[in-house]
Amino acid sequence: MQNFEFFNPVNIVFGQGQIKKLSHLVPTGTKIMLAYGGGSIFKNGVYDQVKAALPGLDLIEFGGIEPNPRYETLMKAVEIVKNEKIGFILAVGGGSVLDGVKFIAAAALWEEGDPWNFLTNRKLVVTKAIPLGSVMTLPATGSEMNGNSVVTRLSTQEKLAFNANAVLPLFSILDPTVVYSLPEKQVANGVVDAFVHVMEQYLTYPVDSPIQDRFAESILVTLIEEGPKVLANRSDYDAAANFMWAATMALNGLIGVGVPQDWATHTIGHELTAFHDIDHARTLAIVLPGIMQVKKESKREKLLQYGERVWGVREGTVNERIQHTIQKTVTFFESFGIPTKLSAYNIGADFIPVVCQRFTDRGIKGIGEKGDLTIEQIAEVLTLQL
Amino acid sequence: MQNFEFFNPVNIVFGQGQIKKLSHLVPTGTKIMLAYGGGSIFKNGVYDQVKAALPGLDLIEFGGIEPNPRYETLMKAVEIVKNEKIGFILAVGGGSVLDGVKFIAAAALWEEGDPWNFLTNRKLVVTKAIPLGSVMTLPATGSEMNGNSVVTRLSTQEKLAFNANAVLPLFSILDPTVVYSLPEKQVANGVVDAFVHVMEQYLTYPVDSPIQDRFAESILVTLIEEGPKVLANRSDYDAAANFMWAATMALNGLIGVGVPQDWATHTIGHELTAFHDIDHARTLAIVLPGIMQVKKESKREKLLQYGERVWGVREGTVNERIQHTIQKTVTFFESFGIPTKLSAYNIGADFIPVVCQRFTDRGIKGIGEKGDLTIEQIAEVLTLQL
Repeated sequence: MQNFEFFNPVNIVFGQGQIKKLSHLVPTGTKIMLAYGGGSIFKNGVYDQVKAALPGLDLIEFGGIEPNPRYETLMKAVEIVKNEKIGFILAVGGGSVLDGVKFIAAAALWEEGDPWNFLTNRKLVVTKAIPLGSVMTLPATGSEMNGNSVVTRLSTQEKLAFNANAVLPLFSILDPTVVYSLPEKQVANGVVDAFVHVMEQYLTYPVDSPIQDRFAESILVTLIEEGPKVLANRSDYDAAANFMWAATMALNGLIGVGVPQDWATHTIGHELTAFHDIDHARTLAIVLPGIMQVKKESKREKLLQYGERVWGVREGTVNERIQHTIQKTVTFFESFGIPTKLSAYNIGADFIPVVCQRFTDRGIKGIGEKGDLTIEQIAEVLTLQL
Repeated sequence: MQNFEFFNPVNIVFGQGQIKKLSHLVPTGTKIMLAYGGGSIFKNGVYDQVKAALPGLDLIEFGGIEPNPRYETLMKAVEIVKNEKIGFILAVGGGSVLDGVKFIAAAALWEEGDPWNFLTNRKLVVTKAIPLGSVMTLPATGSEMNGNSVVTRLSTQEKLAFNANAVLPLFSILDPTVVYSLPEKQVANGVVDAFVHVMEQYLTYPVDSPIQDRFAESILVTLIEEGPKVLANRSDYDAAANFMWAATMALNGLIGVGVPQDWATHTIGHELTAFHDIDHARTLAIVLPGIMQVKKESKREKLLQYGERVWGVREGTVNERIQHTIQKTVTFFESFGIPTKLSAYNIGADFIPVVCQRFTDRGIKGIGEKGDLTIEQIAEVLTLQL
């Protein structure tokens, strides 16, 4: 096991009927921004529950945060936070709203020029932010229990991430009944998103870390079991709850402590979103099988362990087991109606050099857990997934 | 899954060589109490490393905190903390030192009479404490990442617990190399202690909580695999690290969220320590197999799941599988040289009514996850384990 630090002070309030606890969780004596996305929280009753839990508070609403939240939109909120002297931001929505609020919270106190800089320049560290909390309405990204945020800039077609303890939510309310009204596509995306989050922290190379490995496998198996139940019956409370908790545990830092991490699938996937506006989870379902194939040698031991423990693949030669395991993964994604090929989005081979050029322009030589997935191999991954 | 709240802000700093980070972790500008137990930290070099990491700080040392830390000793430290206006307490030691420091930290700010009251009266809540941190030297209790504390009072032969967020350590440094110098008995006790912590949160009845169940099983399997490795070769860094992380994860609250919890083994075990001064872990190894036997009906589903997933017990009738599973557990404890019968400590049947009387005196009708392990059944458990 590698040395690590783990710090996750997010207060998780989990279960049906918990939104009413907002009145105890939100700080008093300060102006609050209530931030959300599109209209779903008006349809599923969450908006009404939130408002009912916060009577008499000084609230300013900011709606319209997009899926893949946009810098241009968020900067409007930053202006309001500054002008209105907002002291707390409550994010009500899915991962995009939460990611957007983290950016707003950090940008509002950023004093070194354009806040976009802390996304483009890894050396700039966010150390302060307006305190924030969340009511999570879409199990998927894990943003409710981490300090990660991904923001898209339309003008430059860039999608970039930052991470800071300063933007860890003070609390996150997870009420599984929000799943009842989710469209099929969002459930499917959520399951795949959480699944790939685990894979990025698990499918690397062994470092003798049995707790982390087994926790990761626990989440994968749970998503495989519970995902289809949620899709089949959105009102199955226990399935919704288990899916929701799995998505949170997939990216709250715990399974990634002391182990190497990959994140090449995300890095390449972000470009598919930036250029073609494909849903985040769907980009991951395209890229991951390609990386498993191209990196089957350096990931061999973990691929075999994953195949055996998660999919029960025990028969055949090493290569047969690996191919069987990749196929199991592809079939799982596709069983949720999520394609794993670029052709499903009418993207052809001409897109590949465009993506590669972007990595070259950023001075990137290689990505992944060993930094050895080269630009040429990124092209190979995307060619396999045409 | 049941509704729950989860909040664990302890900053874990894990790995070899991490003690030197103390200089960044300990608050400056305040007087610090350095609290420890017997002499082990002088022999294993931890004391020297701690002192080297804290040059020029205003330190007051308090040594001599016992295994099963005693109220009488701890109250002496409370006086010093008050008189010297200590602003931070650093616990350097195992679970007993940490538990003792939590009591000291809370008692020093307790304003409602004798601090012993917040152990005897569950209605009294500890809401403030001197900030504390730890350098953990013995994987076992999980005290490094929770708000639990167990204190023994000699004069009344009582061993009681309290729990408060106010006594969660700000940080805990876990350097697995501390295991290198542990005597065999402490390793054995630590493995069994962590194992039973998991069982208390797992071996109850099903509530459709696959993540919690699988995480619990992950820790159990890891302890079964890594425990013997540590015992065989104390200098196996990875085994020591995995054992240490397993012990922390066993009782940091995570596997217990949203599920019923038992804790009858601990409740009865504490009396064995209070009356006969048997090591905590050793009391658990005696009581747990008796509870598995007496409660085999109400725990049936989880006993079968535990047997199958942790021990691979799949053959035979339900009762045969349960008996095989209990035997596996007993054999595991005994393989570490830990007896599972009272006779090993020369305790006879005359002790049983004494324990039962104590529960009766406290007005207890039943304990365990359903509150239905009656006083008669406690007697039955202890009779089985004579």
